Amino acid sequence: MTVSRVLRNRGDVSAATRKRVLEAARRLGYVPNKIAGALASQTVNLVAVIVPSLSNLVFPEVLTGISEVLDETPLQPVVGVTRYEPEREERVLYEMLSWRPSGVIVAGVEHTPAARAMLEAADMPIVEIMDSDGEPVDSLVGISHRRAGRMMAEAIIENGYRRIAFLGTKMPLDHRARKRFEGFSEALARAGLEVADREFYSGGSGLVKGREMTETVLARTPDLDFIYYSNDLIGAGGLLWCLEQGIDVPGRLGLAGFNGLRLLDGLPKRLATMDACRAEIGREAARIVAERAHGRRVELTPRLDPGDTLMRSAAG
Amino acid sequence: MTVSRVLRNRGDVSAATRKRVLEAARRLGYVPNKIAGALASQTVNLVAVIVPSLSNLVFPEVLTGISEVLDETPLQPVVGVTRYEPEREERVLYEMLSWRPSGVIVAGVEHTPAARAMLEAADMPIVEIMDSDGEPVDSLVGISHRRAGRMMAEAIIENGYRRIAFLGTKMPLDHRARKRFEGFSEALARAGLEVADREFYSGGSGLVKGREMTETVLARTPDLDFIYYSNDLIGAGGLLWCLEQGIDVPGRLGLAGFNGLRLLDGLPKRLATMDACRAEIGREAARIVAERAHGRRVELTPRLDPGDTLMRSAAG
Repeated sequence: MTVSRVLRNRGDVSAATRKRVLEAARRLGYVPNKIAGALASQTVNLVAVIVPSLSNLVFPEVLTGISEVLDETPLQPVVGVTRYEPEREERVLYEMLSWRPSGVIVAGVEHTPAARAMLEAADMPIVEIMDSDGEPVDSLVGISHRRAGRMMAEAIIENGYRRIAFLGTKMPLDHRARKRFEGFSEALARAGLEVADREFYSGGSGLVKGREMTETVLARTPDLDFIYYSNDLIGAGGLLWCLEQGIDVPGRLGLAGFNGLRLLDGLPKRLATMDACRAEIGREAARIVAERAHGRRVELTPRLDPGDTLMRSAAG
Repeated sequence: MTVSRVLRNRGDVSAATRKRVLEAARRLGYVPNKIAGALASQTVNLVAVIVPSLSNLVFPEVLTGISEVLDETPLQPVVGVTRYEPEREERVLYEMLSWRPSGVIVAGVEHTPAARAMLEAADMPIVEIMDSDGEPVDSLVGISHRRAGRMMAEAIIENGYRRIAFLGTKMPLDHRARKRFEGFSEALARAGLEVADREFYSGGSGLVKGREMTETVLARTPDLDFIYYSNDLIGAGGLLWCLEQGIDVPGRLGLAGFNGLRLLDGLPKRLATMDACRAEIGREAARIVAERAHGRRVELTPRLDPGDTLMRSAAG
């Protein structure tokens, strides 16, 4: 009976006895069952984390930020992957909410009406992450991708480039890439410029994809003087291809990507990019859930890193 | 009462009524609470997945494989990160087992005695993944890293290299990198060779790290004719540095990495590497848990990809 009282954390048991019992239980591999406790409190120590993908580099970094903060709490992340499909997001969300998690962290502010209804009806902290261009259900942590696109366009124009192409993913449901492109086009338009060419792809990104698309777009529009890529990986592929062709980067052709992947430091030239604050987004979102906060809004500022491929003057 | 019976999946309700009620509930964002059901069955539809890190590229791919398979089931992964620390693994495991998950997928076969006791006492499928060099508690899915190291050493020797260095992570708890190094040294010894130099680092890997280490080791041991890296990222950094220095790869110096990262396809030369079967490991492990299987052993065969940096004859 003493054992049972210790393991259930009930009853009058001396500290010494408690310690002995817990140590014995530990040796035997005994783990208390918390489901009954959860039933009583109607909530469980799990945080639903819903991301589009784990196989690109961006979301694992967000998850790392989340797990850094939750590690210091009794909360643990449950991960759902939507593959950028709204119906799958709806289904994953439904499954996860059925566990009454302590909170939900979900990528993006675009959801189906049913998914949004579930989030609105859920009585727990909801944090929409990555993107601040939209109305969140509850809390929001992210950057403005429209602004990121505008910032990059402005930097490109300031450096004297005029014939500017956009190369990116075709995925119609990657709303953040779409918003960057919109902000980018807007800022060009304000300077009296149009996107001189564009090329879209589907499927995973990688260096090879960036090489191929760069070759294609330069064959079609040889007088381009800048290429803005929707992510660093295809940008790095484009950079390698240009250097092999002997193209003067950034003198003849400037290049920029997006995400601020530290992983790619060490290429022959550092690609201009923009820090998307991934780990920080994960940490802030986890903090909101851990503090059971509501209605918080954390807009982070993407930081432009001109690398070696954007500033003609610095090229020397 | 009809509504309640539908939502609890109980009682005689016509299919048409059930459908109407569920649709209405869905619009309102209603999600049934499964905790009570879990209490009755003493198990929950969650799978504990315990990995050392999410910020390198390897484990997100394993997770992607797991989530691909679990997506077709009612099971969902709960992710715990150990940062390669045995005490943290113990703690994460304890937390997760308290939920009575439907199974545990845990990286590696090395655990503290307490963690192993918990795994042995747990009444659910346990799958240790990545590494087949060791005795699993229950099921195992992985490759032999000793064998991977041996295979690479044999390929290097066959191609006529004799002054061979190893560059890798210092982390004493990365048992898989250690086993590759052991298998590698063994195979060299059998051919009457010793590792001609070695260099270890701590902290995250990246192209820059590979550049620096390559420069260091070649300055110290200029007559090296091969470098075996413990992962593709540092290998790719080494490759870029060598090409910039005008070193003939693989004529004068051969290079090889480990992991088979498709991400790096598109470098000026394709680094020799070995496919570590990551997504497949994730899928197989998830299948074992989904099928509630026990005692299964799936040893996958790493596949050597000689790329452009291992076979002197193919260099042309």
